[in-house]
Amino acid sequence: MLKRRGLILPAFEIHGGAAGLYDYGPVGGRLRNRVNQTWLDHWQSLGNIVEISCPTVTPYAVLEASGHVGEFSDFLTECTKCGEASRADHLVEDKYPNAESLSRDELASLISEMKPNCPNCGESSWGNIVAQNLMFNTKIGAGKSGRDGFLRPETAQGMFTSFTSIYRHFRERLPFGAVQVGKGYRNEISPRQGMIRLREFNMAELEYFIDPEVQPIHDFSSWSAPVCLISDEQGEISMTLSQAVNDGIIRHPTVGFFMGSTMDFLVNIGINPNHLRFRQHESTEMAHYAQDCWDVELLGSYGWIECVGIAHRGCYDLEAHEKATGQRLRAWRTFKEPKTVEIDGWTIDGAKAGPAFRALAGKVKSAIEELPAESSFPMTLNIDGQELEVRDEHVKRLQRTENMAGEWFIPHVVEPAFGIDRIIWHLLDHCYTETEKSGETYTLMTIPEIIAPVDVTVLPLYEKDGMGELAKSIHRDLCSRRNVFSIYDASGSIGRRYARADEIGVPWCITVDHDSLNDKTVTLRSRDSGEQIRVPISELEF
Amino acid sequence: MLKRRGLILPAFEIHGGAAGLYDYGPVGGRLRNRVNQTWLDHWQSLGNIVEISCPTVTPYAVLEASGHVGEFSDFLTECTKCGEASRADHLVEDKYPNAESLSRDELASLISEMKPNCPNCGESSWGNIVAQNLMFNTKIGAGKSGRDGFLRPETAQGMFTSFTSIYRHFRERLPFGAVQVGKGYRNEISPRQGMIRLREFNMAELEYFIDPEVQPIHDFSSWSAPVCLISDEQGEISMTLSQAVNDGIIRHPTVGFFMGSTMDFLVNIGINPNHLRFRQHESTEMAHYAQDCWDVELLGSYGWIECVGIAHRGCYDLEAHEKATGQRLRAWRTFKEPKTVEIDGWTIDGAKAGPAFRALAGKVKSAIEELPAESSFPMTLNIDGQELEVRDEHVKRLQRTENMAGEWFIPHVVEPAFGIDRIIWHLLDHCYTETEKSGETYTLMTIPEIIAPVDVTVLPLYEKDGMGELAKSIHRDLCSRRNVFSIYDASGSIGRRYARADEIGVPWCITVDHDSLNDKTVTLRSRDSGEQIRVPISELEF
Repeated sequence: MLKRRGLILPAFEIHGGAAGLYDYGPVGGRLRNRVNQTWLDHWQSLGNIVEISCPTVTPYAVLEASGHVGEFSDFLTECTKCGEASRADHLVEDKYPNAESLSRDELASLISEMKPNCPNCGESSWGNIVAQNLMFNTKIGAGKSGRDGFLRPETAQGMFTSFTSIYRHFRERLPFGAVQVGKGYRNEISPRQGMIRLREFNMAELEYFIDPEVQPIHDFSSWSAPVCLISDEQGEISMTLSQAVNDGIIRHPTVGFFMGSTMDFLVNIGINPNHLRFRQHESTEMAHYAQDCWDVELLGSYGWIECVGIAHRGCYDLEAHEKATGQRLRAWRTFKEPKTVEIDGWTIDGAKAGPAFRALAGKVKSAIEELPAESSFPMTLNIDGQELEVRDEHVKRLQRTENMAGEWFIPHVVEPAFGIDRIIWHLLDHCYTETEKSGETYTLMTIPEIIAPVDVTVLPLYEKDGMGELAKSIHRDLCSRRNVFSIYDASGSIGRRYARADEIGVPWCITVDHDSLNDKTVTLRSRDSGEQIRVPISELEF
Repeated sequence: MLKRRGLILPAFEIHGGAAGLYDYGPVGGRLRNRVNQTWLDHWQSLGNIVEISCPTVTPYAVLEASGHVGEFSDFLTECTKCGEASRADHLVEDKYPNAESLSRDELASLISEMKPNCPNCGESSWGNIVAQNLMFNTKIGAGKSGRDGFLRPETAQGMFTSFTSIYRHFRERLPFGAVQVGKGYRNEISPRQGMIRLREFNMAELEYFIDPEVQPIHDFSSWSAPVCLISDEQGEISMTLSQAVNDGIIRHPTVGFFMGSTMDFLVNIGINPNHLRFRQHESTEMAHYAQDCWDVELLGSYGWIECVGIAHRGCYDLEAHEKATGQRLRAWRTFKEPKTVEIDGWTIDGAKAGPAFRALAGKVKSAIEELPAESSFPMTLNIDGQELEVRDEHVKRLQRTENMAGEWFIPHVVEPAFGIDRIIWHLLDHCYTETEKSGETYTLMTIPEIIAPVDVTVLPLYEKDGMGELAKSIHRDLCSRRNVFSIYDASGSIGRRYARADEIGVPWCITVDHDSLNDKTVTLRSRDSGEQIRVPISELEF
């Protein structure tokens, strides 16, 4: 049905297709767009969130700093008979449901013991298990001056590398956030589960920067109903978000706030709240730097699937880029009262260091003043790619008392990351309703109006006597309104056309009949109630 | 200014940057989004246009069929001293302004004669000139089962490979169109000119499918003013679009209609109509299959730059994919009266062919019936990847008269293709206004409200006595409205803050002062008129 009605289709199908790549078709394209825009509106309405947009092609150095070059990989093994690559953990997951967390050695011994068959050719003859990086790689530029690059595995890095610009935009006042909606890439070894595991996916991430020393104040009053939490320590519990924050089950109030706000967004676009739960990462599952992480899991035809991750990432990301680049990615914290600090360290002796380092003397000074008191000279500094030898004569000891008004610190970040394709898949699942009509199965897609891919269908009862022309003029008038999308449909019986509109979730149908020609009224039919009322054309509101 | 104010920034700058890659920052991100959405609205309002969204990672076969593997290239030469790659035509363009159209041999002899210096190291020692394909390449999948792929050089191919789904969506009735907004990639050898020549760019394309035998009817009445046309044959002329269509200067009415509609869009988002002209491709410049092509050129700091191309591509694209895949990418045309056709060809002899070809017999029959009368047997057919030998005994001659109600044909396509980054660059250029205020230069960005990245700035006169709190609550209320984006700004003098808002093109400022606390009114200031009026908070409309 998704394919037949133009919602989601395998991409490049006429060319034989490509696993893990999908199209949003003539109906799905606008659905995707409206989900994205509703997501942006949702976060921007907080008042301290901005949208940015960064390239997907990313230089090696950026993803080396973020840790993706080293750690973004799965274990792969190739069938020695047919050459097909398989994920090693998939081959043994029937017996080991948590095979994803097994080490290379564990996987190797399990495969040699279980002798799983190749899903492609059926033989059982496996090569070595190797860690396969999951980023699509490419070359930026041509010839010998080409540089290694990747397609970004997530949008988040753009928010970190642009931190300075965002910080300046918000007049250097925390907390604030930046969002980005766009493509992410993961070169899956063997994609499965349709829209769940894609090689190119639509994602939407918010990076929210906070001062770890400021206790955040969030209003939890709109989430008074208990939600389903699967806590690392307590297992499945039903509890309000504010209670879970107070009890320390959710380890940071801002994480709890984003959990509630994420739930609002999902329910707003059509997710069934009874098929939504929060699952906390176990400490072994979580990245070492993360302080807390909750997945929003949605129930659909593949069981419970992670569709959003809300992670407290500490200062990990900004610190990693700071280390790799030497650029300051920090915020300024003014002390309530100035602090007196004993400075004990080094500075340069201008008379000697000036002539020695010339244009770089300023940078050498900054670097020397960062050194601890116990440093010894000579030492070699790398300044702007140049190796400089700093000798005893260039420096002098600096000991004094200073009043400091504040300090630079690395903000912490809380990151809600959304898999848009998975969310769309589940909202279609949750909105899909089968009823019976005249003894036959009847399909209805109860997509909320806020994201319905088509707002209204205009149907002439027949395309004669001027009904077609009148219907077309209503259709064109509706299309010309901002953010309104109408379909004109004149093919098949009126019942068949209503059914087609219901199947793709059009909330309203307008029918032009013989009476319309005389009294300028039309029939307005509601998808959800089935109710039909007569409305003057001039009073149609969309 | 673009960088300082968070509009457009070099990407990954803290990591040393990457030529040809840019970020849209905290202000530019929403500008880009609104331009994209306004573009989508503009075309969808026509009533027969749908949005689709396809992957950027594209298998080799698709881009081989489209001709990009063979023809999407520039001539490259490397400096033998420093290894830097340069575009051969760039090295000689000082003397040959149209160097782009020179052949490899012409470029080689010019370079050996002119001995241009390497822009990187200054030496003049050049290697061979080679054709360098401009697509970013990558591998889809891992190991030996990985397949070659590219990042798409344009969004258009997705509309062609999805043609069948779009055709079905429109109930098989031409004309209709599909649009796509997204990333395109071109691995430039040596990117220059900032936002004009990017390696990853935002593009927006419409593919509009028409029946070449139906004379289109378009309404040109809203474009009564003459426009600047640079015609292939007549040079620069000033003429209305309808006149140019009637005179055959614009060679197809649908091309003329899209030229007008494109101009409306551009002027609507802030392009100065006096800095816009249409330039027709010369016949030598145009692709061999194109029937007409007009660029929309905008005047900015780089001179006249092509920002939109509007091309009549004939049946080239669908035919190319049909040939490569064997799938039908056609529309059905019903004859006004059924036609009588003499069929003279071949069909299968079921009694012999059935047992011989079994499951494939049906496909063999279709293939045989497509063969011309003069075919001879035995012949080898490739059906579903299998080589089949069709012998005399499997076939029989088919000669009969048939009444045909209609026929399948390949639709023609008219394609307006927009470079969104170039358009944004020029609209910022055209909206940039320098005036004088108190003897100093004062910058104003007169971005139209429809795409303004920030709709309103809320300013407390001071952050004390409750003015800050009141301003914040107004700010939050505005942000919570759909499609409204507000900034809260409390840093610096009020004049400085107005200037900052003017500089990024915020159309309205709201100031909260002491009076606001008592009478619940605020000052509403217009960017363009400078006028300030007093408005009750409850009556603020955005």
